[in-house]
Amino acid sequence: MYIDCKSIARTIDEETLSLTSKNRARLVSLAIEPDEGTISYLKSQQKKAKSLNIDHETFVLEDVAALRQKLLELSKDETVHGIFVAHPLPKGIDEFEIASLIDPNKDVEGRNPVNLGKLMYGEESFAPCTAAAVVEILSRNMDLQGRNVVIIGRSNTVGLPLSIMLLRRDRSATVTVCHTKTRNLEEKTLQADVIVVAVGRAAFLKPEVVKDGAFVIDVGINVVGDKVVGDVDPEVEKKAIVTPVPGGVGVVTTAILMNRVARTASRGGQA
Amino acid sequence: MYIDCKSIARTIDEETLSLTSKNRARLVSLAIEPDEGTISYLKSQQKKAKSLNIDHETFVLEDVAALRQKLLELSKDETVHGIFVAHPLPKGIDEFEIASLIDPNKDVEGRNPVNLGKLMYGEESFAPCTAAAVVEILSRNMDLQGRNVVIIGRSNTVGLPLSIMLLRRDRSATVTVCHTKTRNLEEKTLQADVIVVAVGRAAFLKPEVVKDGAFVIDVGINVVGDKVVGDVDPEVEKKAIVTPVPGGVGVVTTAILMNRVARTASRGGQA
Repeated sequence: MYIDCKSIARTIDEETLSLTSKNRARLVSLAIEPDEGTISYLKSQQKKAKSLNIDHETFVLEDVAALRQKLLELSKDETVHGIFVAHPLPKGIDEFEIASLIDPNKDVEGRNPVNLGKLMYGEESFAPCTAAAVVEILSRNMDLQGRNVVIIGRSNTVGLPLSIMLLRRDRSATVTVCHTKTRNLEEKTLQADVIVVAVGRAAFLKPEVVKDGAFVIDVGINVVGDKVVGDVDPEVEKKAIVTPVPGGVGVVTTAILMNRVARTASRGGQA
Repeated sequence: MYIDCKSIARTIDEETLSLTSKNRARLVSLAIEPDEGTISYLKSQQKKAKSLNIDHETFVLEDVAALRQKLLELSKDETVHGIFVAHPLPKGIDEFEIASLIDPNKDVEGRNPVNLGKLMYGEESFAPCTAAAVVEILSRNMDLQGRNVVIIGRSNTVGLPLSIMLLRRDRSATVTVCHTKTRNLEEKTLQADVIVVAVGRAAFLKPEVVKDGAFVIDVGINVVGDKVVGDVDPEVEKKAIVTPVPGGVGVVTTAILMNRVARTASRGGQA
């Protein structure tokens, strides 16, 4: 069975539209040497922003010095409510340094270390967007208390922040984070009530390692031929409750990102 | 079997002494309404600082306004290399706000959210002290890669930051965080190569839920009658490798805290 993520995104979008009908909101996206995937993503982001009455601009910058400069400028600019930096950045750029330059109150993606640290105090207003989307989808579909959640992947955009968020007292899942060095992964996934897969490999999660009726959240976005597929084998859907790709975590993530721009604007730029 | 934590602390202390022989270092501790335990802790901290040639002062402040003021002042004061705020703070004080006022580069305990967030980027120079002590003890005793680590407790001083630290690529443990809402805790601890207990209940971890030969890190400090005991039942030591209480995680934590003061001083106040 598939989870209907589009309806979750719609609910969030409705709130966003209600906010942008009252306050002008503006999102600025930055990229260096964008590849085809990034360009196509930024175009769809622009379209989505427009549909939600959010002003949107994209700047393609020459190098890291120009990116730094622009980040400082946008962080100060009171007419800007959200700053997005397209990833992956070219090799050699210090992602930590770049993330630290984004004003935490405009950090709609949740990359600034202060926003990551706040998670450990239970403060999630600028949690990493994708992790926030996973929490949103799970919270709307189940009571997480005491559930065994297995997260596969330990990135600072999904696995690590998500683990902290699912442990928060109002959720209280029991969380295991797995990765390439994990031994006997299948023993862990077979005991899981919820599996979150964020590894970036098409059809990585096979049905034989998933418990009947488990919730499976597919964070993967992989291009195979001319198709976009997730990290979960399509067969898993026959025994478990799965988020689709495309039209799953991604649409909720975008809805949350836009919602934050609108919320920041409605607070006059303050979190 | 017990792990010799005092020798680990001594090794760290030697480095600290070598640093303080070259650069004057100064630690300032703050408290509001300190109880007996806090007063006794601050006294032993002062003694320890003295033995390591670190200047130490304690200020007992009247209220949260005075604490805020003092934190701002000390954060700016270039002669101060470490700021310690005694916990627990009186009820009603926003710990997040207080932690945010400590200059991240003098935050020797690792409470400022920016220092917590840096952990997700692999940057640990101001990781929470107790979590850092656990990592130090484990790293000196085993290769963590692929080991199943079960952490019991989800505080922002131990459980949460420790989970992120043990997942870092140079360690690569598989980490499960458990807590009061975890179901069938014993199933998880019995599969664990390493158990970290930070629950604050004397003799909480019983031998029958621990695998033979497992590493058990006891973070508990509980006063029972006139004795200080940990969270681990003394019987566990007969089948597992355990850190003692007292003389375990605590002494390594203090050694790390002092070492950070000395390091910050030797860098001229910068991280």
